[in-house]
Amino acid sequence: MTSTPSADPSQRLSVNALSERLVARLVDDAARYAVAITRTDAGTTLVDAGVAAPGGVEAGLLTARICMGGLGRVARRMSAEAEPFLPSLIEVHTSMPVLACLGSQYAGWSLSATKEETGGKKFFSLGSGPARALAVKEPLFDELGYRDRHVRGALVMEVDRLPPQVVIDKVLRDCALAPEALTIVVTPTHSVAGTVQVVARVVEVALHKTHVLGIDLAEVVEGSGTAPLPPPAPDAIQAMGRTNDAILYGGRVHLTVKHDAVAERLAAELPSRNARDYGRPFAEIFTAFNYDFYQIDAALFAPAEVWVSSLESGATWHGGAIDAALLRAQWGKP
Amino acid sequence: MTSTPSADPSQRLSVNALSERLVARLVDDAARYAVAITRTDAGTTLVDAGVAAPGGVEAGLLTARICMGGLGRVARRMSAEAEPFLPSLIEVHTSMPVLACLGSQYAGWSLSATKEETGGKKFFSLGSGPARALAVKEPLFDELGYRDRHVRGALVMEVDRLPPQVVIDKVLRDCALAPEALTIVVTPTHSVAGTVQVVARVVEVALHKTHVLGIDLAEVVEGSGTAPLPPPAPDAIQAMGRTNDAILYGGRVHLTVKHDAVAERLAAELPSRNARDYGRPFAEIFTAFNYDFYQIDAALFAPAEVWVSSLESGATWHGGAIDAALLRAQWGKP
Amino acid sequence: MTSTPSADPSQRLSVNALSERLVARLVDDAARYAVAITRTDAGTTLVDAGVAAPGGVEAGLLTARICMGGLGRVARRMSAEAEPFLPSLIEVHTSMPVLACLGSQYAGWSLSATKEETGGKKFFSLGSGPARALAVKEPLFDELGYRDRHVRGALVMEVDRLPPQVVIDKVLRDCALAPEALTIVVTPTHSVAGTVQVVARVVEVALHKTHVLGIDLAEVVEGSGTAPLPPPAPDAIQAMGRTNDAILYGGRVHLTVKHDAVAERLAAELPSRNARDYGRPFAEIFTAFNYDFYQIDAALFAPAEVWVSSLESGATWHGGAIDAALLRAQWGKP
Repeated sequence: MTSTPSADPSQRLSVNALSERLVARLVDDAARYAVAITRTDAGTTLVDAGVAAPGGVEAGLLTARICMGGLGRVARRMSAEAEPFLPSLIEVHTSMPVLACLGSQYAGWSLSATKEETGGKKFFSLGSGPARALAVKEPLFDELGYRDRHVRGALVMEVDRLPPQVVIDKVLRDCALAPEALTIVVTPTHSVAGTVQVVARVVEVALHKTHVLGIDLAEVVEGSGTAPLPPPAPDAIQAMGRTNDAILYGGRVHLTVKHDAVAERLAAELPSRNARDYGRPFAEIFTAFNYDFYQIDAALFAPAEVWVSSLESGATWHGGAIDAALLRAQWGKP
Repeated sequence: MTSTPSADPSQRLSVNALSERLVARLVDDAARYAVAITRTDAGTTLVDAGVAAPGGVEAGLLTARICMGGLGRVARRMSAEAEPFLPSLIEVHTSMPVLACLGSQYAGWSLSATKEETGGKKFFSLGSGPARALAVKEPLFDELGYRDRHVRGALVMEVDRLPPQVVIDKVLRDCALAPEALTIVVTPTHSVAGTVQVVARVVEVALHKTHVLGIDLAEVVEGSGTAPLPPPAPDAIQAMGRTNDAILYGGRVHLTVKHDAVAERLAAELPSRNARDYGRPFAEIFTAFNYDFYQIDAALFAPAEVWVSSLESGATWHGGAIDAALLRAQWGKP
Repeated sequence: MTSTPSADPSQRLSVNALSERLVARLVDDAARYAVAITRTDAGTTLVDAGVAAPGGVEAGLLTARICMGGLGRVARRMSAEAEPFLPSLIEVHTSMPVLACLGSQYAGWSLSATKEETGGKKFFSLGSGPARALAVKEPLFDELGYRDRHVRGALVMEVDRLPPQVVIDKVLRDCALAPEALTIVVTPTHSVAGTVQVVARVVEVALHKTHVLGIDLAEVVEGSGTAPLPPPAPDAIQAMGRTNDAILYGGRVHLTVKHDAVAERLAAELPSRNARDYGRPFAEIFTAFNYDFYQIDAALFAPAEVWVSSLESGATWHGGAIDAALLRAQWGKP
């Protein structure tokens, strides 16, 4: 008999290869996704999914799947609740939660350029998506023990304009990609596609807080989640607040872990309500801290409600709760 | 840098090209979809999805996707409600609601033939689906400013027999298609596939009433909806009544529009309960008006419950309500 | 005009051909599905989806689709209930319920080997999936009047080790397949993938009990169902009990049949609560009967709650109810 190696199979997966087909679809069917394609002189593909082009929910869903390195299912659904205050939600599933969410989807690659470098406004973005795993510039990749190698790559930026050439060049260099082998998808926070791809981070947020809590990531073997999908808010702070609120006050996540002690602890500690700043709309908190992210209790960045199942005993623990009243007050009619 | 044109991307989409792959699947996998394929002497393909062939829900779902010009997601789901009286529902999503629903799915092309022309019974059908956009025989297309050009086309007819050659010839002429380039899918009202593809019009019905209300269609940028999926009724009037009731008393739609004033107005005026004839089963209303559609208050053709989100403020308005008691009384055990 | 034959279209379908693409995906993308591939010396492909390889929900979903001969939709969902005790569920749909569930998915092919034959431990498994229809060793196939003929085949085994060569040889002989044309997928009961593919039998269980009740299978034209998806239990008896409980106490099925009398009877007799042994966790019942399956009232193997629609009148009957309290007591935190 001959067998394939039995080591952790996620180490043999390329998030850039797995998402390559999805990137090609977004670019080739640009009109269908209401996105606009620009190519730099050197041949890098820029996808405008909400700056000048309208984009939309479908563009956002495809961007979210690209973000997860082709290892997640992302869909919009109508709620089947009797009386939902908002019937649309995003549903996410992955059987490779650590690789899909932290190895690819997490917005962890800080990419900036000064006024001098751009020749105009300064630029700042946290890059997300599979190209992060080519560049491996974040300490997180050491902990994951994962590095992708592939001839093509895709990066997602939640910004309101196309990135300047100096930033594109930095990405190309760090990823060791030829210019024409890189695609950058741009989804502004206040766009429909941007809202979708951020709300689709509901499982990623749970994984990231699991990491913040110091729990061994190898514990987590399955992840599913939902969060309500509001329309974007026109104001940048409100838009960012809204996508955060969708997760912090409306997000529900079901994780499966290996051990009972981890499941019990996560059910208790993972939900957002453990955070000092819990209970107010995110935009209000952010404003109160003078727009300084790092003043906010990191424990707030978590789903509202979680279920954590353990393979050790087969038991499931539950913690937290969604706060529909807060969301209704924020998102209902003026 | 080079860019794609930034004009309304929906104008560059071909609903017949986008649905061509779906039509090919229905024809090539006819046994799997339990449909029967007939080819006229000139080579036009006729798909029987419920006349003599059994058809089924899967055939209906694929027909609905063809109807939406490949620009809609259509699925059946089991309700997750605690006590549903009927657990099956149809769920529809589109990021191109105007083009998918009015440019393609709406049953607006009147196609008839006299006894003399057919050499038998007279024939009447309202054609729906992407071929309408090749023929552009309806004034609606002037308002949409949309015309498709493609070498292949597909039309859906909700009738209980295959169309006579004289009607096929008219379609070919108006669409400027070669006989072998046209596919016509036939789903009787009283068939399972017919029920599915009509209930899948829940978002289209909302779009059409938006148009009836005189609202600029360019306002509507996203559409989602659900409606319960009953089995067909054996009687033709009851079958038609049943699919209408699914939408008028059981349909829920979430639209996203550009402006607050439109969202507020639609939430108030869109729901079916604004209509004079609201409150009785559709078959009863239809019978009371001596089977004359045009006597029925046009405002009745609308979903029961709506949410309308606005990109202007990010707020969501809600209106209407489903009438589960009416549906239960109509569809429950005798 | 030329037409395709109008006989029962399911007779012209090959469940092995329809699932061939799904089998290829599981094997070719083994790392993505966290399964391990072994090839016997003669070239038969063995897929380990939970013995030594981790497998996972995605591997289980794909295995379930293979089991249904490519004729079913199988997905995991998050419940949209206000207060689910476990938010993950499996949802199944098919427009070919008899062929997909009984002609392919049912675990009805008894495959065993003695200690002498294996040269080690004795082996016993009930084979399920499309290869059953090549072998047609079960009397059920006479009743179905179905026999598949295809050059490739796939079988699924719910066991905790790879099958011995003597069993593989028996399968090859009975299916008349070349060694390299057979794929066997192994999902242990206590694995995640195994739990998924067994819970995904919720519609199959309804079909099988319909058969046990002596109802003509040609009556059933559509089938949908859901069941909650618990994590596996580590203990073999508890794991088996858990997947059974998911269906017997948590399963909901909606069938469509041809006649009112059948619908009325099925709604009354199909639910599991009609069984003598109903009301206790399956593992407890099984233990009480000294692990002898055949002592358990066969009427217990059924979904908890059913809706049965009839094409004769269009009415829908309802029967049974889920027992969330029993499931919660079994699956909640210790």
